[in-house]
Amino acid sequence: LGEAHLEARAWFREQINAAGLALEVDPAGNHLGHLNGGPKDTATFLLGSHLDSVAYGGRFDGALGTLAALEALTVIREAQVSLPVNLAVIDFSDEEGSLIPLMGSRALAGTLRPEHLENPLGGPEALQAGLKRAGLQAEGLLNAGRPPGSLAGYLELHIEQGLRLEEAGAQIGVVSGIVGIGFYHLTFIGRADHAGTTSMEARLDAAQGAASFIQTARRSTMAQFPGCVATVGRMQLEPGATNIVPARASLTLEFRAPDENTFRALEHTLLGEAATAAAAQGLKLNIEHRGEHLPAPMSPIGQAAIAEAARALDLKTIDLHSGAGHDAQSLAAICPVGMLFIPSVDGASHSAREFSTWQDCINGANVLLQAALHMAQRLG
Amino acid sequence: LGEAHLEARAWFREQINAAGLALEVDPAGNHLGHLNGGPKDTATFLLGSHLDSVAYGGRFDGALGTLAALEALTVIREAQVSLPVNLAVIDFSDEEGSLIPLMGSRALAGTLRPEHLENPLGGPEALQAGLKRAGLQAEGLLNAGRPPGSLAGYLELHIEQGLRLEEAGAQIGVVSGIVGIGFYHLTFIGRADHAGTTSMEARLDAAQGAASFIQTARRSTMAQFPGCVATVGRMQLEPGATNIVPARASLTLEFRAPDENTFRALEHTLLGEAATAAAAQGLKLNIEHRGEHLPAPMSPIGQAAIAEAARALDLKTIDLHSGAGHDAQSLAAICPVGMLFIPSVDGASHSAREFSTWQDCINGANVLLQAALHMAQRLG
Repeated sequence: LGEAHLEARAWFREQINAAGLALEVDPAGNHLGHLNGGPKDTATFLLGSHLDSVAYGGRFDGALGTLAALEALTVIREAQVSLPVNLAVIDFSDEEGSLIPLMGSRALAGTLRPEHLENPLGGPEALQAGLKRAGLQAEGLLNAGRPPGSLAGYLELHIEQGLRLEEAGAQIGVVSGIVGIGFYHLTFIGRADHAGTTSMEARLDAAQGAASFIQTARRSTMAQFPGCVATVGRMQLEPGATNIVPARASLTLEFRAPDENTFRALEHTLLGEAATAAAAQGLKLNIEHRGEHLPAPMSPIGQAAIAEAARALDLKTIDLHSGAGHDAQSLAAICPVGMLFIPSVDGASHSAREFSTWQDCINGANVLLQAALHMAQRLG
Repeated sequence: LGEAHLEARAWFREQINAAGLALEVDPAGNHLGHLNGGPKDTATFLLGSHLDSVAYGGRFDGALGTLAALEALTVIREAQVSLPVNLAVIDFSDEEGSLIPLMGSRALAGTLRPEHLENPLGGPEALQAGLKRAGLQAEGLLNAGRPPGSLAGYLELHIEQGLRLEEAGAQIGVVSGIVGIGFYHLTFIGRADHAGTTSMEARLDAAQGAASFIQTARRSTMAQFPGCVATVGRMQLEPGATNIVPARASLTLEFRAPDENTFRALEHTLLGEAATAAAAQGLKLNIEHRGEHLPAPMSPIGQAAIAEAARALDLKTIDLHSGAGHDAQSLAAICPVGMLFIPSVDGASHSAREFSTWQDCINGANVLLQAALHMAQRLG
């Protein structure tokens, strides 16, 4: 909800109006453009993604899916296709979590809780400032959930952000599910000592426990959990002086697995290894659970619709799970959801190097359109 | 040179005056109290230490040696002992290196260089502010070196800051030398990637190289360099996000060895291990040498004088090297130097837990007095 994002959304509102769709901005700031062609009081089938981006990110992550959805609705409106549901394009607020991960889609799904607002990823001040800039209120976010049955389904096109399509020579990825993500803060606790007068043998060096864990976490994830990932992205030593043995080594642990059983097994293994690494060095370990998104399977109806649409367009597909989080996982809690990927050149993501060829973008938009028609027929 | 330190020095100037010594504040801010009892134009034998402390440090580190030296000179003056040298008590500026490590003693020894002032440990702003508060100027620091031959020797009493005296049941440590200290910044360089979409196999995770090095540095120092230490006290991962594979892991490496051959061998081993750890993970390594203090042997005359004084006072001694840096190492470059330790309870140091019993303090002051008389006679 920074200035550039708000500018993009103002532009998007103009496009919705220009396309002859009915604009709705919900209490979570999600932007919808309604094409109310279905029977009266029928459910709405959503197509979309998000316009926000990480800092220094690329042009495709989110924006592609939002604009392709708008184009699909424009085509459907122009072709005067009759469907058993209403359609709407949607741009979700703050998917990337500059404030709160998947903020808009979780609000819409009714799964955003007061505790998410109290402990936002970007800090309380950034959240307050962002909401104020966008004219939103915390109460609105908590009351943006749609009534049960009001949504017929959701379909999202996104860039893959990985190498699997490129490596397989496929144009379309049929997403089978979105990985679960677990977040922890781990702190290894030893004792601060003078780095000159305390022998190596007498030390309780917190950095040693953290270093051991960083290595074993990688080794065992690779050996025991193929396709899963575990990442230590931040680490701090305290007191943090050149000449003091570290008393505390705190780090962030993030891990991802495609299904809930694997997710829990990986979590159990990683926490066990942290405890073992601490004990081996005589350190204490503090484990702080910072949250999780459970694995979200995509609807078989959605997967079939995407595969069928691609086949009809003579595009090669592979089935794959998404290692990144997406708004689709929020929606999976309340309605049937489909998700498709197009290739990312070199797998680059969250980077200015991010790129997808225009032909792949066109392929994705065509599959989105056809799969949406399939799903809307099936789910109406 | 913070406010509390300046207050302590103002108090110390009063004590010098009250003891009937001639106050001198040199261009490096070192405070001297002269007892000019020797022949005209003879060299000066210095006794002292430093009054500055690390933040949240204890009451004994530095202050003990400074005040014991003042007391020794008071006794010598009252007893009207005739010596072949002049005596002076000295309080060195900023031993701990809040601004520049061993600033005052290196200035007095003439070994402080413009590059030390340009890259101060505490940052240029802190240095400017500290010098201004104390009424000092950079040029003064660089011109505070004493003429060759003007110093007859130096003797320093200090707390051990370790456990060796306590473990040996000894009251006095005869310091054989002060360890050399090497400082490096090491940066392991990989590639930032999306933590969800980049497989473990495809990563160039800088944290893995750093973690491997932290562990092997400890193992090989213990196995191949007994009595030496190696410490990683600070570490940073970049870009430093929970969900991004670290592209850079930068850390501080500090190592200490008692003699120059061992010092160079340890340095060679540690840097080799950093290179090996980087290569094993496909990472690049950037090595930045941040400085060093070479090992400083103490004078045999000083060691003999301390041992003899302790024996005469019926105090048990052990020989040991100092793992911490001291002003004595600066002075060792220009005159014969002696250094003695008294026990630190539990080895606590740079901590409010720092403590030495009053009896140990008295023992140390008595040995300082007697050893100073021995050394002054030998070096006059």
